[in-house]
Amino acid sequence: MLEELKKEVLEANIALVKNGLVKYTWGNVSGIDKTTGYVVIKPSGVDYALMKASDMVVVDLDGNVIEGNYKPSSDTPTHLELYKAYKELGGIVHTHSTYATAFAQGKRDIPCYGTTHADYFYGSIPCSRPLLKEDMDSYELNTGKKIIETMSKLDIQAIPACLVAQHGVFAWGKNASEAVYHATVVEEVAKMAYVTETLCKPNPLPEYILDKHYHRKHGKNAYYGQEKKNK
Amino acid sequence: MLEELKKEVLEANIALVKNGLVKYTWGNVSGIDKTTGYVVIKPSGVDYALMKASDMVVVDLDGNVIEGNYKPSSDTPTHLELYKAYKELGGIVHTHSTYATAFAQGKRDIPCYGTTHADYFYGSIPCSRPLLKEDMDSYELNTGKKIIETMSKLDIQAIPACLVAQHGVFAWGKNASEAVYHATVVEEVAKMAYVTETLCKPNPLPEYILDKHYHRKHGKNAYYGQEKKNK
Amino acid sequence: MLEELKKEVLEANIALVKNGLVKYTWGNVSGIDKTTGYVVIKPSGVDYALMKASDMVVVDLDGNVIEGNYKPSSDTPTHLELYKAYKELGGIVHTHSTYATAFAQGKRDIPCYGTTHADYFYGSIPCSRPLLKEDMDSYELNTGKKIIETMSKLDIQAIPACLVAQHGVFAWGKNASEAVYHATVVEEVAKMAYVTETLCKPNPLPEYILDKHYHRKHGKNAYYGQEKKNK
Amino acid sequence: MLEELKKEVLEANIALVKNGLVKYTWGNVSGIDKTTGYVVIKPSGVDYALMKASDMVVVDLDGNVIEGNYKPSSDTPTHLELYKAYKELGGIVHTHSTYATAFAQGKRDIPCYGTTHADYFYGSIPCSRPLLKEDMDSYELNTGKKIIETMSKLDIQAIPACLVAQHGVFAWGKNASEAVYHATVVEEVAKMAYVTETLCKPNPLPEYILDKHYHRKHGKNAYYGQEKKNK
Repeated sequence: MLEELKKEVLEANIALVKNGLVKYTWGNVSGIDKTTGYVVIKPSGVDYALMKASDMVVVDLDGNVIEGNYKPSSDTPTHLELYKAYKELGGIVHTHSTYATAFAQGKRDIPCYGTTHADYFYGSIPCSRPLLKEDMDSYELNTGKKIIETMSKLDIQAIPACLVAQHGVFAWGKNASEAVYHATVVEEVAKMAYVTETLCKPNPLPEYILDKHYHRKHGKNAYYGQEKKNK
Repeated sequence: MLEELKKEVLEANIALVKNGLVKYTWGNVSGIDKTTGYVVIKPSGVDYALMKASDMVVVDLDGNVIEGNYKPSSDTPTHLELYKAYKELGGIVHTHSTYATAFAQGKRDIPCYGTTHADYFYGSIPCSRPLLKEDMDSYELNTGKKIIETMSKLDIQAIPACLVAQHGVFAWGKNASEAVYHATVVEEVAKMAYVTETLCKPNPLPEYILDKHYHRKHGKNAYYGQEKKNK
Repeated sequence: MLEELKKEVLEANIALVKNGLVKYTWGNVSGIDKTTGYVVIKPSGVDYALMKASDMVVVDLDGNVIEGNYKPSSDTPTHLELYKAYKELGGIVHTHSTYATAFAQGKRDIPCYGTTHADYFYGSIPCSRPLLKEDMDSYELNTGKKIIETMSKLDIQAIPACLVAQHGVFAWGKNASEAVYHATVVEEVAKMAYVTETLCKPNPLPEYILDKHYHRKHGKNAYYGQEKKNK
Repeated sequence: MLEELKKEVLEANIALVKNGLVKYTWGNVSGIDKTTGYVVIKPSGVDYALMKASDMVVVDLDGNVIEGNYKPSSDTPTHLELYKAYKELGGIVHTHSTYATAFAQGKRDIPCYGTTHADYFYGSIPCSRPLLKEDMDSYELNTGKKIIETMSKLDIQAIPACLVAQHGVFAWGKNASEAVYHATVVEEVAKMAYVTETLCKPNPLPEYILDKHYHRKHGKNAYYGQEKKNK
């Protein structure tokens, strides 16, 4: 079942490795099928080099395995919590990419210092509060809740990623492939922000340039790319 | 039409990716045909892996599309403004390469700390003033104007690149391929300058060594390479 | 003799190069055969590109060459000292990987700043005391003793690596391949810790998250991966 | 003539690019034939991807071209000055590798902070004094003289490289291939020293460990590798 989506999720997982965001099994991608409400996700701890589309696991939004020979990613409850909260999501990615994770380890948002960032994120990429001791019991579920709390006053389509304090990156998009794209942008702008901050004391991008660049690419007046799309 | 130039511009775009200066569609190269005055430029937001020479867009200096199935790069007005101001340019490149963009995000020139820099740039690589709120309407055009303002007291052949504040790099040359070369040098010397500044408090290269190195490679007394060329 | 183990040790040595942990001949891997007590180790100073499984050297725990056309790695006495002290080890790796070695050169433990670290190391990766002048005579043996001293109050399975001050990394595991895995994690978390510390003043991961992440992957309640394993 | 040496010098030039030390034409390697006293060196400004062994240029120690279709590297007078000063040299390399050049741009020696450095360099890798205005006339010759001045109290076999202030790296060895090896080590230990210094305030390696590591690999009591060699 869901063969197309499995293939897409597999390819997105492999793209994580190709883009240098993930070593070994340290990341995962999922995609949701809007018709059935089922989520296709990477199996837990399986070698990327050996993974086949048929190894992807199908779960429902309550986490029951519908199909699959493997256990789903241990981060599945985080993915499901986000899909339940945001109907517009089609794909979710989790990475420990180096520079973005360093911001997460420092419990810091990634500020918007330039247009590279503004082209994809309409403001800082936020970092969640740290999880508390009482969050440990349903750890992966509570990781999802912390992301939802962090994004509560933000537009999840205009800021398609969130750092989890002392942990790593969650990014999302309209499908698994776009989620990988956003995770790649997060790492690149995190590295740029790191280099900028260790070089000098930068100011955030003025709001009018942030507006200009974001809206060149997004929304009804977008003029970047080959067709105007309302995201 | 302009098949040779299209091929050259395509190859220059691909070289941006190979040289690690560009991820996804975040860059663009153009070349100008001196006879017709037409500019060949990358289409907007098209995947580098799939681009063919025939996908390159031909525009005139007023931005009218003369030939092409795609919309030209959204940065086209910046390129055109530079071609109109500087008749000697044959190719222009725009990148968001990491270290150079960090200098741009910090609104800083890249100082000349050594001979690697001096071999290609006869002094600091300047950073423009930030664009103002009133520049947002014709944003890409005004980006070109800011570059021209920044280069107004400089020799654009001796300093073949300019940072745009909080944005990225524009570089140029006698053709598309040389423009890519210069963009690659900008990133390399930006990284070296970053490492040097975070290691210690360096002094700029003395003017007599700057003179020596630049003129080993450029101008009528050049003796580097296989033939003397007046650039 | 021990053809399987030789092949495994060869592949682990080659993985060091592929993972970017080792340049030229600057690293070594060994594996122990629990039945005979013999150790298979890389020959000293032989080009990785030319090494064959049959070039691996077999030594006993006293360092006598049992089989092999080459001299064993000059670091063999360090490996043997560790195998003698810790019966549970199956493989040992030595590298000079860049970021981890920088911590060693600064005589610093690698603090645990996030879950990437906590997934594999149950606390800081410790750095040994520097070797003293009187340690120079049996230098490689005393390197082993310094590691053992450093690990004396730690669980070597929960912290499967140790930095040697001003020198580099030793990592270990249940076999040669897992030892390489751990050495790769050390370098990755060292780089993350470096970026984090040069970006801001981070706090170590709270103990309850360290506990949670480590025990997701290790011990009788582990639920990461496809089967529960007691390491 | 000197076909073997030409091939060796070509391969050494290509190894510079493979090892990430050189972009475009920014480096050069030479080798000397001890019988004729002729030096084989890379042609100036020729693309590495297109270079053939037969493109290498043969010059005598006075810089006269003995054979070759191209002009020799513009740095040839530096190479010749070093060959004339040090009869024991068989190969010389010049690079602008990033981290080592950053130390040169900061006019700083690369201190020995660990055994990776000590295995190949018996102490700091020194940086020359800057060239003066009066050095500009015979610039490449005077670059050689500055290196010789810098090395005057050092053993050029125990410290087989020198930084030239605000310029880059010269390294050497018993042949072209070993010179490339040493240039690669310089870049690696420069990067390690950079990371160490920006992480904390390190101390240089104590002299007794420097002695131990250097003499494990070099001199009559060396025991690293497959045969004892007196370098």
